[in-house]
Amino acid sequence: MALPPEFHEIAKRVNNWGRWGEDDEIGTLNLVTDEVVRSAAAGVRTGRRIPLALPLQQDGVQTGLIPGRINPLHTMIAVNQRMFGPGTVATSDDVVTMALQAATHWDALTHVSHSGRIYNGRPADSITAHGRSAFSGIHTARHIVSRGVLLDVARARGTDRLDGDHAVTPEDLEAAEDLAGTTVRPGDVVLVRTGQIQHYLAGDRHGYAFPSPGLSIRCPEWFHARDVAAVANDTLTFEIFPPEIEDLWLPVHALDLVEMGMLQGQNWNLEELSEACAEEGRHAFLLSAMPEPFVGGTGTPVAPVAIL
Amino acid sequence: MALPPEFHEIAKRVNNWGRWGEDDEIGTLNLVTDEVVRSAAAGVRTGRRIPLALPLQQDGVQTGLIPGRINPLHTMIAVNQRMFGPGTVATSDDVVTMALQAATHWDALTHVSHSGRIYNGRPADSITAHGRSAFSGIHTARHIVSRGVLLDVARARGTDRLDGDHAVTPEDLEAAEDLAGTTVRPGDVVLVRTGQIQHYLAGDRHGYAFPSPGLSIRCPEWFHARDVAAVANDTLTFEIFPPEIEDLWLPVHALDLVEMGMLQGQNWNLEELSEACAEEGRHAFLLSAMPEPFVGGTGTPVAPVAIL
Amino acid sequence: MALPPEFHEIAKRVNNWGRWGEDDEIGTLNLVTDEVVRSAAAGVRTGRRIPLALPLQQDGVQTGLIPGRINPLHTMIAVNQRMFGPGTVATSDDVVTMALQAATHWDALTHVSHSGRIYNGRPADSITAHGRSAFSGIHTARHIVSRGVLLDVARARGTDRLDGDHAVTPEDLEAAEDLAGTTVRPGDVVLVRTGQIQHYLAGDRHGYAFPSPGLSIRCPEWFHARDVAAVANDTLTFEIFPPEIEDLWLPVHALDLVEMGMLQGQNWNLEELSEACAEEGRHAFLLSAMPEPFVGGTGTPVAPVAIL
Amino acid sequence: MALPPEFHEIAKRVNNWGRWGEDDEIGTLNLVTDEVVRSAAAGVRTGRRIPLALPLQQDGVQTGLIPGRINPLHTMIAVNQRMFGPGTVATSDDVVTMALQAATHWDALTHVSHSGRIYNGRPADSITAHGRSAFSGIHTARHIVSRGVLLDVARARGTDRLDGDHAVTPEDLEAAEDLAGTTVRPGDVVLVRTGQIQHYLAGDRHGYAFPSPGLSIRCPEWFHARDVAAVANDTLTFEIFPPEIEDLWLPVHALDLVEMGMLQGQNWNLEELSEACAEEGRHAFLLSAMPEPFVGGTGTPVAPVAIL
Repeated sequence: MALPPEFHEIAKRVNNWGRWGEDDEIGTLNLVTDEVVRSAAAGVRTGRRIPLALPLQQDGVQTGLIPGRINPLHTMIAVNQRMFGPGTVATSDDVVTMALQAATHWDALTHVSHSGRIYNGRPADSITAHGRSAFSGIHTARHIVSRGVLLDVARARGTDRLDGDHAVTPEDLEAAEDLAGTTVRPGDVVLVRTGQIQHYLAGDRHGYAFPSPGLSIRCPEWFHARDVAAVANDTLTFEIFPPEIEDLWLPVHALDLVEMGMLQGQNWNLEELSEACAEEGRHAFLLSAMPEPFVGGTGTPVAPVAIL
Repeated sequence: MALPPEFHEIAKRVNNWGRWGEDDEIGTLNLVTDEVVRSAAAGVRTGRRIPLALPLQQDGVQTGLIPGRINPLHTMIAVNQRMFGPGTVATSDDVVTMALQAATHWDALTHVSHSGRIYNGRPADSITAHGRSAFSGIHTARHIVSRGVLLDVARARGTDRLDGDHAVTPEDLEAAEDLAGTTVRPGDVVLVRTGQIQHYLAGDRHGYAFPSPGLSIRCPEWFHARDVAAVANDTLTFEIFPPEIEDLWLPVHALDLVEMGMLQGQNWNLEELSEACAEEGRHAFLLSAMPEPFVGGTGTPVAPVAIL
Repeated sequence: MALPPEFHEIAKRVNNWGRWGEDDEIGTLNLVTDEVVRSAAAGVRTGRRIPLALPLQQDGVQTGLIPGRINPLHTMIAVNQRMFGPGTVATSDDVVTMALQAATHWDALTHVSHSGRIYNGRPADSITAHGRSAFSGIHTARHIVSRGVLLDVARARGTDRLDGDHAVTPEDLEAAEDLAGTTVRPGDVVLVRTGQIQHYLAGDRHGYAFPSPGLSIRCPEWFHARDVAAVANDTLTFEIFPPEIEDLWLPVHALDLVEMGMLQGQNWNLEELSEACAEEGRHAFLLSAMPEPFVGGTGTPVAPVAIL
Repeated sequence: MALPPEFHEIAKRVNNWGRWGEDDEIGTLNLVTDEVVRSAAAGVRTGRRIPLALPLQQDGVQTGLIPGRINPLHTMIAVNQRMFGPGTVATSDDVVTMALQAATHWDALTHVSHSGRIYNGRPADSITAHGRSAFSGIHTARHIVSRGVLLDVARARGTDRLDGDHAVTPEDLEAAEDLAGTTVRPGDVVLVRTGQIQHYLAGDRHGYAFPSPGLSIRCPEWFHARDVAAVANDTLTFEIFPPEIEDLWLPVHALDLVEMGMLQGQNWNLEELSEACAEEGRHAFLLSAMPEPFVGGTGTPVAPVAIL
């Protein structure tokens, strides 16, 4: 099963290898200049903050379908332990085991390879079980702060939640831009809302996982044309799942991460943000979505915040 | 070994129990109003971002002294796995096990109890090994974004790094305020730089751990008078270690977390920030330091960023 | 909800506190004398070995119902890593995270407390999150080797698998003794086969978990009368589940572990052993079921073997 | 750095590929016939049991030198939790994270590869981060019960503990055989005592790790000639470390695991056994050393027991 010609044609059009030098490890994050951030901070109107991460707990979004991608397991190593004798202060400590892509997360550029390559043409086998990723590990994405724009596709289509078989198209993104009253600009981080996460919030993990609306294979070209820095949404699979083209699995992942060098975010809870943006009549904000700097990690949990 | 009278006297003066209602779980984070954040965002000048987290890796700051507080263990569950057949895209996935207080972190208010109580007078045994913290778990600190102020005590004292037996006093903080050219205001997050983390950065974990400069037992009153929202620094122990008063262990933890309900941050790398602030002649900035929302967690890794 | 009078009456009759001294931590394992083992070894006829542990894997018996009791998560830290340069030998290494009671396991005596006590009258709060169990941790059960006797209740009742609502009674055990052609003796480890594990082996984890046949509240007295050293079976819950007496949960656990000080084993795969014993016409064997010596552990995975 | 000619010459002489068929995954464990086990059981004299595993705890033998090979981290998910209401029984549960080769363990045949091959000529890349080992994972070594023979080299040389630079030779093994008063036979599991573990038992982890006495590159031929089933000893490195031949790292591992297909055990505590064998004047016993059946694992913790 090789990748079909239509994939390779799109790949050619969105490819960013070499664009920021052959040593580059961060891809489209290069588009987030100080000026982009300065301007986004200047756009803050109220100081209202909306967090976008799901709670981290055993009862998370993972269903067990992807072996080993476990929900956060939170255990205790001390509960009110008086290390220095009775009567003194007591401390409580805890430990977590979790898959880096289990919850609200960023995929690192290394999360996907195709045809033996990762972003910027490096060999896929530069990712190993011992040294982890020699290039583009999530720790190289040092800081992700930029203008965020909510493209509320569900609301733009007049619905709470897109159907499970809805592929989000560039036309959908532009309709959401119209609703937002702003145009996506170079260096923006785009948050695409489908409403799919409502399944999980209502207690239905399996309904959340599959079938899922998500980005169409046509979206990466749109992101590329707008020079977007990163994209996140409120689904488990990011792209429509099952896929649009039979047997072409995860094409959007391959185009975004490998060809463009553009980070993807998944399982972001955009419900409260959707309400807030509608209330305030603004869909652009300062977004801080800092990766935890796992050295060589192929992803990271993230606790993003929109500052309106 | 009971807590001495001088501890209880300070405790009385800084106590915030009931100040934000008997149901409050977040303490001084209540001081971060939208207006504080709006004003901090308006103060951004250049858009330069400085990340403050240490890399997450096995070779982290923990030395093994605190049993179970392990450095991040990063392992792989898939390396370039072709789930959908040869020739298609391949994915890599990973897992981490780590103590929530192992690296650059926030202590939750529940990290410490004394005299059977946690913040707001709740019983210490509301922290359990199964339900974790019924109140004030780190997930309740939903968003931490505010004005940050670097109090560069080392630089204000004309040194790179404070000595291991230096207790940072209110006078030190005020000298650093003078250097900063700003006054700490209600709702600020204060970052106190000692330079101690240079030991770790130079490869000496044990020298970093102990002896360590850190906050004096006199600091909490100063923080209380200024109505600071949270405090972080660049040491493992936060407060001077070994302690100033014999057999009075972790008094600053107990005053900050239990009495005031004020979050503490440890192992923050303030070296690059110190350089940047000196270069730009500004020591105040927009700070985003979002907790990962571990439900009931007594702490969390954090990837803070200063936006100048 | 207090424990009912009938529970306390049985408890009084089977109680072993003080029987082996007030310092004892291992309870009925005291019954396994060298002579018991010598005689069991002398009874080996063919040297055939039957392992009784389930495979350790993510796809284990846990369904997620008990929060945190995760199936084994097996991850890699190195795959064919050449630490000493290309061309030399390469090593592969791995890590596991698992609940100690997740798979084929022994419960330690500390796994259950009631009325504030564990075995031998010690306070339940001698089990802590930091120091773990001060007494009777699984490491104190240093070696478990004895005569094993398979009481094949399912086969004795002429069925492959007991119904989900079948409480195994002393009469069932005696019918199985008749089938076995041997009498249970002091120091024996008794393996009670229900056939319930066939659900799991056929891929139905939920059917395996619940409803489940298992030991009746009447069994502990029988074990006490025979001076059995330990009991294991092929179910998740050990005792019948849901319980025989409304709102009296886990009474057999409380009687076995707390009152008698008798270890229990769960999720033992007795299918192959059942076939082998039937073929050879013998149901007694040398059993080795060594606990992994987790210091202070409240349970342990175990890889038992019957030597026929 | 390729493997030197002397390695390849020995490799040719001890190679067992194909000896038990091209589909074989367990190598020399094929030598443990029912008759070997029956005879070993018949040799039990007293029924005395000696456990050989080190306690599993954070303060284990690993020093951090091998990244990721962490000592057992034991954490709690419940402490005296009353799931069914106050007054009823309470349960305690725990979780462990540990490297499979961290403590007293067996190496699986897959732990080492050389020249791109593992045992029986299979490709090294049949070990992956996702599917783990397709062949010879530790779960394939279903049961390890056999005659054990203690070759107490330290005692035979009239010392408590061999020097750190002592390579154990075939002559040493034969001197220990003389002391033991028995000859090693096909199917035996040989335990070689150096006394090195006394360093760890005395609290010196670093002295235990390095320098370490251990098996000479000449030993595998001796094991091959005797048709030994498996070998374990009381060191971290198994073979002498640093190695006898400059830049030839882990040659014994490569010969035992890859060429012969013979399991190796490390960090076995043979001190109590040494005393017991000396007291009883017998150095052969029934040994049960069951692997925990981690599917695809490249090693496993083991809790061996000698039955005298």
